[in-house]
Amino acid sequence: MESQTKFLTFVYQEEFPLERGGYLPDITIAYNTFGRLNEERDNCIWVCHALTANSDVADWWPNTVVPEGFLDPDKYFIVCANILGSCYGTTGPLSINPETGEPWYDSFPKLTIRDVVRAHILLADHLKLDSIFSLIGSSVGGFQAIEWAVMQPWRFRSIVFIATAPYASPWTIAIDETQRMSIFADKTYGEKRPDAAKDGLAAARAIGLLTYRGGRGYNLTQQDHPSEGVPDYHRACSYQRHQGEKLIKRFDAYSYVTILDMFDTHNVGRGRNGIAEALKHITCPVVCVGITTDIIFTPEEMKELSEMIPNSEYREIDSEFGHDGFLVEHTLLKKIINNFFSSLPQQKQ
Amino acid sequence: MESQTKFLTFVYQEEFPLERGGYLPDITIAYNTFGRLNEERDNCIWVCHALTANSDVADWWPNTVVPEGFLDPDKYFIVCANILGSCYGTTGPLSINPETGEPWYDSFPKLTIRDVVRAHILLADHLKLDSIFSLIGSSVGGFQAIEWAVMQPWRFRSIVFIATAPYASPWTIAIDETQRMSIFADKTYGEKRPDAAKDGLAAARAIGLLTYRGGRGYNLTQQDHPSEGVPDYHRACSYQRHQGEKLIKRFDAYSYVTILDMFDTHNVGRGRNGIAEALKHITCPVVCVGITTDIIFTPEEMKELSEMIPNSEYREIDSEFGHDGFLVEHTLLKKIINNFFSSLPQQKQ
Repeated sequence: MESQTKFLTFVYQEEFPLERGGYLPDITIAYNTFGRLNEERDNCIWVCHALTANSDVADWWPNTVVPEGFLDPDKYFIVCANILGSCYGTTGPLSINPETGEPWYDSFPKLTIRDVVRAHILLADHLKLDSIFSLIGSSVGGFQAIEWAVMQPWRFRSIVFIATAPYASPWTIAIDETQRMSIFADKTYGEKRPDAAKDGLAAARAIGLLTYRGGRGYNLTQQDHPSEGVPDYHRACSYQRHQGEKLIKRFDAYSYVTILDMFDTHNVGRGRNGIAEALKHITCPVVCVGITTDIIFTPEEMKELSEMIPNSEYREIDSEFGHDGFLVEHTLLKKIINNFFSSLPQQKQ
Repeated sequence: MESQTKFLTFVYQEEFPLERGGYLPDITIAYNTFGRLNEERDNCIWVCHALTANSDVADWWPNTVVPEGFLDPDKYFIVCANILGSCYGTTGPLSINPETGEPWYDSFPKLTIRDVVRAHILLADHLKLDSIFSLIGSSVGGFQAIEWAVMQPWRFRSIVFIATAPYASPWTIAIDETQRMSIFADKTYGEKRPDAAKDGLAAARAIGLLTYRGGRGYNLTQQDHPSEGVPDYHRACSYQRHQGEKLIKRFDAYSYVTILDMFDTHNVGRGRNGIAEALKHITCPVVCVGITTDIIFTPEEMKELSEMIPNSEYREIDSEFGHDGFLVEHTLLKKIINNFFSSLPQQKQ
């Protein structure tokens, strides 16, 4: 048993060309592993993380990296890599541009989901993971997983897509643009310091939370106590501000904008005769998980995604917590994913 | 027939005390009327407007102030007053504080929905409208209508509540707080000029739009054209920015914040033994209209509201346009409201 995490970095010392033009002079990828790779090198579960998360999946996805969990470190070798453009060790806007000796800040080049996936591929090649037991992506982590699955379908023996989509819909793009508007409204954006536009970033986070949690989530958890007079305090206000404050202590506006821009490029059908044709490349067993109250990636859309993938089954989580259900409902997810894993043919562990 | 609108102002030259303390030295109320008041003075329909609208209901609620419409100016005397705290002629943050000779800006006192309704009452008294044929409030206009209906149930012979609520829920308060965070992130907020924090205000408007329109609305109307390469342009981004730009040409951040703060105070049950007890005061016929895809005031919540009102029926509009359905679906609304009016006992016209 080797369930403790390792935090590692992989440095790729060549130019990394980008889909939208330009290149990064080199890239560093920060990643965590849990558990031990077996001799056949085929017990890896690769987890793709969402917007502001990091490579420490046990930290941001509580109760999943545990014995008997779907990320059981006694059975699997779990890998999660911090995405390109982020600020948790992988090359991003706060990294030093080797050509100037200064941090990139808002001069960091524009990325696509395909760039992020190509960075994941460099790492997977480096780790010699040619037969990955399962690829798991939730939310915009699912954007990466879908793209990777279509690029290299041979690499995966199973895939789990949770609350995600094969392209960035107008709705999700509108949510991203609104967050950018809040950040750019903060006139300190563009100043060459890591805490530029932190108030705008806090507002952007609060926007995100509205969409992650949805009406039922707020009304369940943020009710005010009854008051005699006109209340000067509302729990919901305090919650929004608190979540904003929390984020700006651990993230920066430049990385946030870089990643939002990248999300908007997501379209697995681009250059592949459309989404339906692209998804036909995925032939391994897939489970698509929708959440009943998710207003970003609705259960109807998850069903449609599942129907477009040849060997996919659809499962639904009944949750009051909207899109955040993928983080909250670990017990329901565990049941779905462990059942899915048990049903796989010729499972090796 | 006298269907042309009249834009009028009513000046109340006494101190107007406010529920949260303090007072306004005097108030001006801007209002529009359409049609002609009958001899019995009982054919008035009073319309309460939402956030950034004005007293010209024919302007912001297209296709309603028309012959055979539910606001038929040949039959009814329609009144709509600009709310306190707004910037369309009624006293608000851009008005001159007579005690300083300067605009109020961010020193404007904090209001409540009950203050707004007491201003409506001053105007209704001035116009000698003791028997109002119908009171109509949609969205946060409904906040005012519900409050007024409970304060003066004797005044109304029928009431129409559309896509609204008897209190500001944690969800709606969170939406308001997030908009304030965007405005305050714009460091020009507080500067003594009407266009302070306009970028923050544009972002706030974009947040509002997300909640007004919802996912289906965006995905129906803002799809991008297919593109070969990575697109640099998204319709949804352009739409969000355009709507923000439009608003800042006609509204200001100080009025916007004043009105958002006021919304958050809404609780028809405050000081009245709770919402259910308060709503029992409303005894005239009421129709509550929900919209299937409204994510701000859900159809389930509108049903609950209707069930708490003694003489109320619930009707639903099937729309893809979310909360904005109340503006878009005038044909469906006309059918519901005209049927409701026809069903009223002893209708006089």
